Amino acid sequence: MAKVKVHVFLKPGVLDVQGKAVEGALQGLGWPGVSEARVGKLIAFDLADDVADKEAEVKRMCETLLANTVIESYKIEIA
Amino acid sequence: MAKVKVHVFLKPGVLDVQGKAVEGALQGLGWPGVSEARVGKLIAFDLADDVADKEAEVKRMCETLLANTVIESYKIEIA
Repeated sequence: MAKVKVHVFLKPGVLDVQGKAVEGALQGLGWPGVSEARVGKLIAFDLADDVADKEAEVKRMCETLLANTVIESYKIEIA
Repeated sequence: MAKVKVHVFLKPGVLDVQGKAVEGALQGLGWPGVSEARVGKLIAFDLADDVADKEAEVKRMCETLLANTVIESYKIEIA
């Protein structure tokens, strides 16, 4: 069984309001050194061993369901 | 400048409805080998070099704002 992690982030240039909110809140709470905050999703799941080409299948999952590829990019980690 | 990544996940045992939804959707789309899906948050930001003990400061950010430690756990990566 493989442990799969998919990181989904808004593409650079797409306004990340959640990131801006986190950045503003941290600065307001006394951490002025925080910048460029982005908030993304992290999807973790187990994938059965009988799935043949895991990397390609997970890529297809991302394109189909996990990421909105118009505005989001993703990164796949399989361990 | 340090690149900080914070992973926030619901603790094991806390019902992750978003994870269940992703799992059900992937299985329904033709990937029955998917199980134990969990959806978390990934917060990435830059931290200025003049922050002294980065690890401790980021831990304090998590406890204060980024994670609800009653139901969520977090993992810090500083690069």
